[in-house]
Amino acid sequence: MPHEGHEGRNVRLIVEYDGTDFHGSQCQAPGVRTVQGVLVQALAETLGHVPKLIFASRTDAGVHAKGQCVNFTTASRIPIERLPLALATRLPPDVGIVKAEAVPATFHARFDALEKTYRYWIWQRPTPSPFARRFAWQVPWRLDVAAMQAAAESWIGRHAFDAFASAGRAQRTSVRELRRLTVAHVDDAIEITASADGFLYNMVRILVGTLVEIGRGRRSAADAPAILASGERAQAGETAPPHGLCLLEVRYALDSDVSKGIK
Amino acid sequence: MPHEGHEGRNVRLIVEYDGTDFHGSQCQAPGVRTVQGVLVQALAETLGHVPKLIFASRTDAGVHAKGQCVNFTTASRIPIERLPLALATRLPPDVGIVKAEAVPATFHARFDALEKTYRYWIWQRPTPSPFARRFAWQVPWRLDVAAMQAAAESWIGRHAFDAFASAGRAQRTSVRELRRLTVAHVDDAIEITASADGFLYNMVRILVGTLVEIGRGRRSAADAPAILASGERAQAGETAPPHGLCLLEVRYALDSDVSKGIK
Repeated sequence: MPHEGHEGRNVRLIVEYDGTDFHGSQCQAPGVRTVQGVLVQALAETLGHVPKLIFASRTDAGVHAKGQCVNFTTASRIPIERLPLALATRLPPDVGIVKAEAVPATFHARFDALEKTYRYWIWQRPTPSPFARRFAWQVPWRLDVAAMQAAAESWIGRHAFDAFASAGRAQRTSVRELRRLTVAHVDDAIEITASADGFLYNMVRILVGTLVEIGRGRRSAADAPAILASGERAQAGETAPPHGLCLLEVRYALDSDVSKGIK
Repeated sequence: MPHEGHEGRNVRLIVEYDGTDFHGSQCQAPGVRTVQGVLVQALAETLGHVPKLIFASRTDAGVHAKGQCVNFTTASRIPIERLPLALATRLPPDVGIVKAEAVPATFHARFDALEKTYRYWIWQRPTPSPFARRFAWQVPWRLDVAAMQAAAESWIGRHAFDAFASAGRAQRTSVRELRRLTVAHVDDAIEITASADGFLYNMVRILVGTLVEIGRGRRSAADAPAILASGERAQAGETAPPHGLCLLEVRYALDSDVSKGIK
């Protein structure tokens, strides 16, 4: 099948996936199962050509998504509203299409993203739960949510987040605007929600790992500003495991009228 | 190892399981993976003898539990509060122990059950969701929750529920007291919660299947009382699939002071 370029309509998909059995969202090596790989295959069968996919965010192995955003152009004449059902028959059960819609020709899922929201689930119990195992970090410790929340608030704002970034991805600048970082008890889980104009590599997982050390009482919430100010990765906590993380939403200017209502 | 009888302490476990990969809760044939089978094996390794397990409820293949109740007697001297962690290392990831506690010698998980509560999850969307697939019945139809709720209310009370029972299990009487049957929207899901002093075989799933036919508009909520009164299985709807069903809680007189707070 031909590899097509920028002819035809520009289409945006909202995609969800259970990241457990994927080696991340995007192709890095041949023979490795990725979200991009299964999506390209299902789209190629549906459209009659191999589309070039642009993902809003790259997610690591084991990380989930409920609101990953992907765009591609196609000359196929298939009605766009039929795409979700047409793809459903060709996608494996761990990937779903929430929505498909036409977007302006200039729309670019990665470059146009204004804000991303991730959620991290923590499950607090001495013994593991069969329901949380795929989607939450199960910790046996009692966590002090108030201390975690106080630390989280001290990191809100526009800062160089080097202390909360893993090496491994070239990024032009380490300055990001962290707009929201909340820690809340919801039933037996602790939900940590983070929104920013963008995140450094592993940033949410390192923020979470550091919050958990504070919640356990290994460090004080009063140390949180100094950890950020140090700019040193070694000052922050461990990287929380990937399977508690989920990309909830990516916001764009073209959706600015729409209140998505992330709680 | 010896098969022990009623010596020693009587122990109650609250057990949860993801029923996806089990052929039901209890052993029916050798070589078949059941919750009872994996639990007996983990307990035998922990206690040093093969315990005789009494389950509060038998759940079918694919049905989940968050509050299955199991009791057994043991002469083992292991501190009961250590059982959940000791079992956690020996159980597969799809079974978890919520709680272990000593109960009076006369306690019997099946005969002493006063009330059982099940929840059924329905996921309404034209395309499947990777997050709902194991735990919810995914229906593409828009359901009229108000009509379902009206029908559900008409079935509350003490009745012979033959219209909502599958053949296949000998039961002394078909009279049950249905104390609660609620239908509620929770985010993208519809939650149906049923409490009774006991349920006939497949009763919750047939109640749900009938409610969905009413929700789709294939039948009227006004027909609901006549379906019950007919006493004929053929008058009710199809049996809803097992994987949407979860045993939430079993109540006993000895817990009567405890408000478990099922919402």
